[in-house]
Amino acid sequence: MASIQDISVSAVINLISAVVFLLAFAIVRLQPINDRVYFPKWYLKGIRPSPRSSGTFANKFVNLDFRTYIRFLNWMPAALKMPEQELIDHAGLDSAVYIRIYLLGLKIFVPITILSFAVLVPVNWTAGETLEHIEDLTFSNIDRLSISNVPSGSQRFWAHVMMAYVFTFWTFYILYKEYKTVSTMRLHFSENRRPDQFTVLVKNVPPDPDESVDEHVEHFFRVNHPDHYLSHQVVYNANKLAELVEKKKSFRNWLTYYQTKYERNPVKKPKIKTGFWGLWGKSVDAIDYYMTEIEKLSKEEAEEREKVISDPNAIVPAAFVSFKSRWGAAVCAQTQQSRNSTIWLTEWAPEPRDVYWDNLSIPYIQIAVRRLLMAVALFFLTFFFMIPIGFVQAFASIDGIKKVLPFLKSLIEMDVVKSFVQGFLPGIVLKIFLILLPMILMTMSKIEGFTSLSSLDRRSASKYHLFVIVNVFFGSIITGAAFQQLQRFLNQSPTEIPKTIGVTLPMKATFFITFIMVDGWAGIAAEILRLVPLVMFHIKNTFLVKTEHDREQAMDPGSLNFSVSEPRLQLYFLLGLVYSVVTPILLPFIIVFFAFAYMVFRHQIINVYDQKYESGASFWPDVNRRILIGLVISQLLLIGLLSTKDTAKSTPLLIVLIVLTIWFHKLCKGRFESVFVKCPLQDAVVKDTIERSTEPNFNLKEYLHNAYLHPVLKVVEFEVSKEFDEENNPLVATKRISQWSSKTVSNGTAEDGI
Amino acid sequence: MASIQDISVSAVINLISAVVFLLAFAIVRLQPINDRVYFPKWYLKGIRPSPRSSGTFANKFVNLDFRTYIRFLNWMPAALKMPEQELIDHAGLDSAVYIRIYLLGLKIFVPITILSFAVLVPVNWTAGETLEHIEDLTFSNIDRLSISNVPSGSQRFWAHVMMAYVFTFWTFYILYKEYKTVSTMRLHFSENRRPDQFTVLVKNVPPDPDESVDEHVEHFFRVNHPDHYLSHQVVYNANKLAELVEKKKSFRNWLTYYQTKYERNPVKKPKIKTGFWGLWGKSVDAIDYYMTEIEKLSKEEAEEREKVISDPNAIVPAAFVSFKSRWGAAVCAQTQQSRNSTIWLTEWAPEPRDVYWDNLSIPYIQIAVRRLLMAVALFFLTFFFMIPIGFVQAFASIDGIKKVLPFLKSLIEMDVVKSFVQGFLPGIVLKIFLILLPMILMTMSKIEGFTSLSSLDRRSASKYHLFVIVNVFFGSIITGAAFQQLQRFLNQSPTEIPKTIGVTLPMKATFFITFIMVDGWAGIAAEILRLVPLVMFHIKNTFLVKTEHDREQAMDPGSLNFSVSEPRLQLYFLLGLVYSVVTPILLPFIIVFFAFAYMVFRHQIINVYDQKYESGASFWPDVNRRILIGLVISQLLLIGLLSTKDTAKSTPLLIVLIVLTIWFHKLCKGRFESVFVKCPLQDAVVKDTIERSTEPNFNLKEYLHNAYLHPVLKVVEFEVSKEFDEENNPLVATKRISQWSSKTVSNGTAEDGI
Repeated sequence: MASIQDISVSAVINLISAVVFLLAFAIVRLQPINDRVYFPKWYLKGIRPSPRSSGTFANKFVNLDFRTYIRFLNWMPAALKMPEQELIDHAGLDSAVYIRIYLLGLKIFVPITILSFAVLVPVNWTAGETLEHIEDLTFSNIDRLSISNVPSGSQRFWAHVMMAYVFTFWTFYILYKEYKTVSTMRLHFSENRRPDQFTVLVKNVPPDPDESVDEHVEHFFRVNHPDHYLSHQVVYNANKLAELVEKKKSFRNWLTYYQTKYERNPVKKPKIKTGFWGLWGKSVDAIDYYMTEIEKLSKEEAEEREKVISDPNAIVPAAFVSFKSRWGAAVCAQTQQSRNSTIWLTEWAPEPRDVYWDNLSIPYIQIAVRRLLMAVALFFLTFFFMIPIGFVQAFASIDGIKKVLPFLKSLIEMDVVKSFVQGFLPGIVLKIFLILLPMILMTMSKIEGFTSLSSLDRRSASKYHLFVIVNVFFGSIITGAAFQQLQRFLNQSPTEIPKTIGVTLPMKATFFITFIMVDGWAGIAAEILRLVPLVMFHIKNTFLVKTEHDREQAMDPGSLNFSVSEPRLQLYFLLGLVYSVVTPILLPFIIVFFAFAYMVFRHQIINVYDQKYESGASFWPDVNRRILIGLVISQLLLIGLLSTKDTAKSTPLLIVLIVLTIWFHKLCKGRFESVFVKCPLQDAVVKDTIERSTEPNFNLKEYLHNAYLHPVLKVVEFEVSKEFDEENNPLVATKRISQWSSKTVSNGTAEDGI
Repeated sequence: MASIQDISVSAVINLISAVVFLLAFAIVRLQPINDRVYFPKWYLKGIRPSPRSSGTFANKFVNLDFRTYIRFLNWMPAALKMPEQELIDHAGLDSAVYIRIYLLGLKIFVPITILSFAVLVPVNWTAGETLEHIEDLTFSNIDRLSISNVPSGSQRFWAHVMMAYVFTFWTFYILYKEYKTVSTMRLHFSENRRPDQFTVLVKNVPPDPDESVDEHVEHFFRVNHPDHYLSHQVVYNANKLAELVEKKKSFRNWLTYYQTKYERNPVKKPKIKTGFWGLWGKSVDAIDYYMTEIEKLSKEEAEEREKVISDPNAIVPAAFVSFKSRWGAAVCAQTQQSRNSTIWLTEWAPEPRDVYWDNLSIPYIQIAVRRLLMAVALFFLTFFFMIPIGFVQAFASIDGIKKVLPFLKSLIEMDVVKSFVQGFLPGIVLKIFLILLPMILMTMSKIEGFTSLSSLDRRSASKYHLFVIVNVFFGSIITGAAFQQLQRFLNQSPTEIPKTIGVTLPMKATFFITFIMVDGWAGIAAEILRLVPLVMFHIKNTFLVKTEHDREQAMDPGSLNFSVSEPRLQLYFLLGLVYSVVTPILLPFIIVFFAFAYMVFRHQIINVYDQKYESGASFWPDVNRRILIGLVISQLLLIGLLSTKDTAKSTPLLIVLIVLTIWFHKLCKGRFESVFVKCPLQDAVVKDTIERSTEPNFNLKEYLHNAYLHPVLKVVEFEVSKEFDEENNPLVATKRISQWSSKTVSNGTAEDGI
C-alpha cells in the first residue's frame, strides 16, 4: 500500500508530463504551418482565412509574435467561451452532448467528494486511533483515510451505508435531470428540416415474381399508406463501384506525388515497377503509367456505374421510402407493415451520411444467426482473449524463437536483443491486441448487420464496455486472466464472489489512482497535441498537395471515436462510484480528470473534430444505463466488503439500494427512451403545420430527390462540378467539396449540397 | 425407489377413481334436471330446447331411457367431432387455442416417448447387466429403465446427450409450427368486424386548466390524427354506481327467495330482522322490507347515475378513441403521441367485455411504484411463503392452542380432537393458502394496474408459473422450504446447483408419476363431474328461480381459468421434458394425461364453459416461452446430472443446447410475437378496403356508439327493455339477456346487442 507521499510523487510526475504536452501544444499550435492540423474544423467550414496567405515569408511558417507564446493556456477559456447553442450549431448535437458526459461526471462527483471528505474521511481516520496506530499520527498512509481503517464489526459502518444511500440518490437526481435535458435538446435539435425526418428505411422487401423491387415497394406503400407516400429510392449494390472509386483515388494520389517529384526535379523522370507492390516487374514511366491506369479505371467505373443503375440484380431488397409529411414517416417507422414480421421491416432512416450501405440487404433469419454467433464470439473474446495472446507471447519468447527459427539463435542470445525480447515483446503483443480490439469489435458489429454508422458505434461501445469491466476493472482487482476469474466464479457461491472482490478493493485504490493519472491526465494532454495527425499532415503536405483541394484532403480532422472513448470514460464513472464510499481519496483525481478532459474535448470539437455523421445524441440511453451498471457494481462490491467486516446486517439495506437502482433504470427508460427511438406524432404534426404555413410552395420531392442515393453514385456529379468550378474559381470549389464531406445538416447547407 | 409393481398398483387405483368419476358423470349428466349444469353453453346461446319441456312428469327429472346409459362414454367421440372452425365460432378463439396446448403436449411427447423407449430404455436396461444385477432379470425396478442404471463414466451417456439434442430440436420444430398456426388463426379470427378494431385506449390524459377531459381528448386527436379521428368515449368513474347495482341485485334475489317461500307456504308471512346479518334488530315483513329497500336503492341508483354522467369530476383521465378505419386505429395504437412518453399513452383497446374498468386512471409514476412493490412482494411470496404458514401451523398445533386458548385445553386433550389437530390442521392450513394463492396473485396483478381482464389473467399466470416451478417442482425435488433452498443456493457455487438437483432427479421419478396420476388423471376426471356447480345450481334452482331468466342466472357455466390452469399444465410439460432423457418411463403417464385432458376440456368448452372475454389467443407467446423455460431447466439439470456421472466432457455440448434454446426463443419472438401485440397495417388496409366496397353505407359511428360505455351505465337500457319484453315475449327477452352476458363477438351478434 503506497503512502500519500508516493502518490504525490506520481502525481507530480504526471502533472509535469501533462504540462509538457500542453506547452508543446501551445508552441506547435501557434505556427501558421500547423494551422490546418489544429483548426481543421474551421477550414472545412470554409470560414478560416489561412494565416499563411498574408505576412512575410518567415511568418508563413513560424510564428514570430512572441506575445502569443506568453498566453500559452489561453485556449482554455476560449474553449469554454462558446455558448452551448452555438456549439450545437457549430459541431453538431452528438459532440455537444458527448462533452456533457464529462460535465455530468463533475456534477455527480464534486458534491460526492465534498460529502465524502466531510463525513467519511473523518469517520475512517478517527476509527483507527482507538486501536493500534495511535503513535504514528504523522505517518500518512492512504489506508488511514479508507474504509480499511475501520475495525470489523464497528458501528461506524452505518455511516458508509448511509453515504451509499446519499450518493445513490444524488446520482439518480443528476442522471434524471441530465436525461431530461438531453432529450429536450434532441427534440429541439430536430426542428430543422432534414431528409431523414421524411424518410423511412424499409428492409427485407420480399421477392415478387412479377415485379421488380422498385415497383413492389412503390405499390406496397401506395396501397398501405395511400395518403402519405411520396417517393422512394431503391438501394443499389455499389460495392464494386465503391472499390473502383477508391482505387482511382489512390492512383490519383500517386500521380500527384510523381508529378510533384518531377516538377521539383525535372531532370529525372520518375520510374516505377509494375509488379507486386512496386518491388519487381518492368520499369515504366510513373506519370504515364498512372495516367493510363486512371483513364482505364475511369472507363471501367463508367461501365460499372451504368451496369449498377440499369441492372435489376444490382438492386438490393431494401429501399428508402419518403412521405409527404413528417407525420406519415413517423407513422410508417413506428408501425408494423406486414403480418409476417420478418418482411417489410421499417425503421427511421438514418441521416444520409450515417447510412452503412453494406448491411442493407441481409435477410432476417441470417441476421438472427449472425447475432447468435457474434454473441458467442463476444463471450469468448471477453473471457478467453488471454489464451491466444499467451500463445503468441510464448512463441515470442526466447525459447519459442529459438525453437521455430533456430538460425536466429546467435542473434537472440545477444544481451540487448535478449532483454528486448524478454522485457518488451510480451507487452508489445498485448498492446497490439488492445489496439486491434476496437477494430475487431467494430467488425463484429458490422457482421451483426446494423444499418447505420451510429448504431455500429453504439453497439461496439457496448461490447467494449463489457471488455473494460471484465478485463480492466475486475482484471485489475483480482489478478489473473478473465477465464481464470470465470472459472473461479463458477465454482464459488454467488455470495462469495462480491466478498472476494470487495475485500481486495481498498488495496487496489493506489493502483487505480496511478492509472487515472497516467491514462487520464497525461493521456488527455497527449490527445490535444495530435502528434500522429501533425506528422501525417506534413508528410502529405510535402508530397501530395498541389491544389487547395488537395490540402483540404490532406487534413485529417478525425472525430470523436464514440465506440472507444465512451466505454473508457465509463471506467472513470465506475471507479468513482465504487471508491466513493471505500476510499474517498481517489475522488479528487477523478474530478481533475473530468474537468481537464471536458476542457480539452470542448476545444477539440470546436477546432478539430469533424463528425462523420449526426445521430442527434442517440447514444444517451446507453450512457445512462452504463452509469447505472457502474452504480449496481459499486453496491454489490460494498455488500461484499461489508460482509467481510462483520456487518452482514447491512446487506438487506444495500440490496434494497440495488433493487431501487434497477427500478430507476426502468423508470428512466420508460420516461425518456422513446424520445431517442420514436418520433412523437404531436411534434411531427406541429412541424408539418408550421412548415405548411411558412413555406406553402416548398417542393419536398425535389428536396428529397437523391438524398439517399449511394454516395459513390453521387460522387460523379461532384467531380464534374468540381472540375468545372476549379477552372473558374478554385475557392468556391474548395468550399463545395468541403461541404460534401462535412455537411452538417444542422447548419442548413444540406439543401444546396444535394 | 418404488418398483414397477408399486406404480402399477397406484395406476390401477387412480384409473379406478377416474372411471368412477366418469361413470358418475355419465349418469348424472343424463338426468334432465341437471341439463343446465352440463350444457349451460347451449342454453346461453339460446339454441338448446329444455329437455324438461316435453315428456312425462318423471321424464322431466330422471332419464328413464336406459339405452342412453349403456353408451356412457359417448361424450368422448362427440367432443372430438366438432371441427376446429366450428369450435372457434362456437366457443371463441381463446378456448379453441387453449385446448390446442394439450394437443401440443401430445405432438411433442408421443414421438419423444417412442424414441425414448426405442433408444434410451434399452441403453439404460442393458447398462446394468455387465455390472451387478445380472441375476435378477425378473426383478423390475424402475431404476433399471432410468439413467441411474448407467455406471459413471460410461460411454453410453453419449446416447443421452444425443437424445437431448433430438428432443430439443423436435420440440423446436413443433413449437415453431404451432406458433405459426396459432398466429394465422389469430389473424383469420380478426376478420370479423369488432368495435376494438377501430378503437384505441388512451390513458394518462394530462390535466388541462381550460378544457375538460372530454374536450381535451377530442382536440388532441382531431389535431394529431386529423383525417382519421371519428369519435371518443370518456370513461366514467362508476365504482359507486356498480356497488349500488350489485346491492340491488342481491336484494332482488332475497326478495325472490322470500316470495317463493311465501308462495309455497302462504300461511306464514316471512319475517326478517333488520340488524347486522339479520341476527338482531326489529323484526319486519321480509317482502315489504326488500320491496321498499329496492325502491330506495333504485332512486339512489338513478341519482348516482345522473351524477356520474353530469359531474365532470366523475370522468377519469382516460378515454376510448375511435377512428374512421382500422388503419387509423392501428396507427394510433402503435405510435407515440406526445414527446413526454408518460402522457397520452395509447394501446389497442381490449374487447368491451375484457376491459378492467377500475385500472384505467392510474398515473404513470404510480404504476411504476406499484410494479416495483409487487415484484418485491412476489419474490417474498414465492420464496418465503412457508414462513407465515409455518407460523399459523405452529399456532394451530396442540401446544399453540393450549397456550393461547387455555380454556380449550380439556377439549383438545381428547384423543379424536388431538389426532385431528395434529394430523389434519397443518395440512388444511397449507391447503387454504394454496386455494387463496390464485386470488392473492390476481389481486397483485390488479394492483399492478393492467387494464384488461385478459392481461390480468396472463400476468397472474406468470406469477403462478414461478410459484409452481419454485415450490412444486424444485420444492419436490429438493425437500425443504423454498427459502431454505434459496439460502443453500446463495451459498453454493453456480455449478454446484444443477449437480445438487440433477443427482436427486431420477430418485423423484416415482413421486412425480404418482403426482401425475392423482393430480392429472383423477383431477381431470373430477373436473368433468362439476360437483360444486351441480350442487349450487340445485340450491339456487330451489330457492331463487321464478322466471326463465332467473334460471339462466342460476346456471354457473364457469370458464377456463387461464391464470391457474395454464401454469399447472406447464408443470406437465416441464416434467415431460426433464424426464424424457432421465427416466423415460414417466412419459406414457404424461401422454395419457394430455390425451384425457384434451378430450375433457374439449367437451367442457363445447358444452359448459362460457368465456368472460375473448382476447384472440393473446396468451400464446407466454405458453411458448414457458415451454422453452421448461426446456432450459431440463438441459441445466441434465448438465448437473451428467457431471456427477463423470461425463463432464458433455457439459459444453449441452451448454450449446441452452444457448440454442434461448436463441430459438428470440427467433420466435421476433418472427411471431408482433402478431399478438400489433396490428399490421397491410391487414388493416385490406379489411378497410373490403368493407368499404361491400358495405359503402355502413354507419360506423352508430356501430361504435356506446360500445365502450361502462357496463353499469348500460345496464339500465337492458333492464328497461327486459322488463318491457318479458311482458310480451319472455323467450326473446331471455335470449337477449343471454347475449348481453355472453355475446361472443365472433358470431356477429354484437351489432344488435348494442
